[in-house]
Amino acid sequence: MAKTKAEIDKNYEERHKEERKEKYLVWGTSVSRKFAEEVNAFLKENGYTKVRLIEAGYKLLKEEAAGNKKDKAE
Amino acid sequence: MAKTKAEIDKNYEERHKEERKEKYLVWGTSVSRKFAEEVNAFLKENGYTKVRLIEAGYKLLKEEAAGNKKDKAE
Repeated sequence: MAKTKAEIDKNYEERHKEERKEKYLVWGTSVSRKFAEEVNAFLKENGYTKVRLIEAGYKLLKEEAAGNKKDKAE
Repeated sequence: MAKTKAEIDKNYEERHKEERKEKYLVWGTSVSRKFAEEVNAFLKENGYTKVRLIEAGYKLLKEEAAGNKKDKAE
């Protein structure tokens, strides 16, 4: 009997589970529920992903850190 | 017998578990391991917390979203 799409997908998932675990991990931390809900509502409203927010935060902090180093050097 | 500090702490944790779960939640998402490791190394090196990064990302995306809305209005 031919496999259903669901069976094929499940098989694929199982075969690639280890590979996926090697390549991805959950980046996150405990934050106040109120803040998390505010952020998630904003992301949803504007069509941003959580990954996009992490990338944006990383970018801004890198700029800030670079600025701090420059200040100290002056 | 007097309780040890560890026992007192454990008791406190248990009594406040529900309260803590109501107030905080884990905000996070699956990202590539390589990216997560890069971000975490940067945070550690510069003494930033993950919460700080999330706040920074939220700030930057809010500015971006506000800019987009302004562009459309012009």
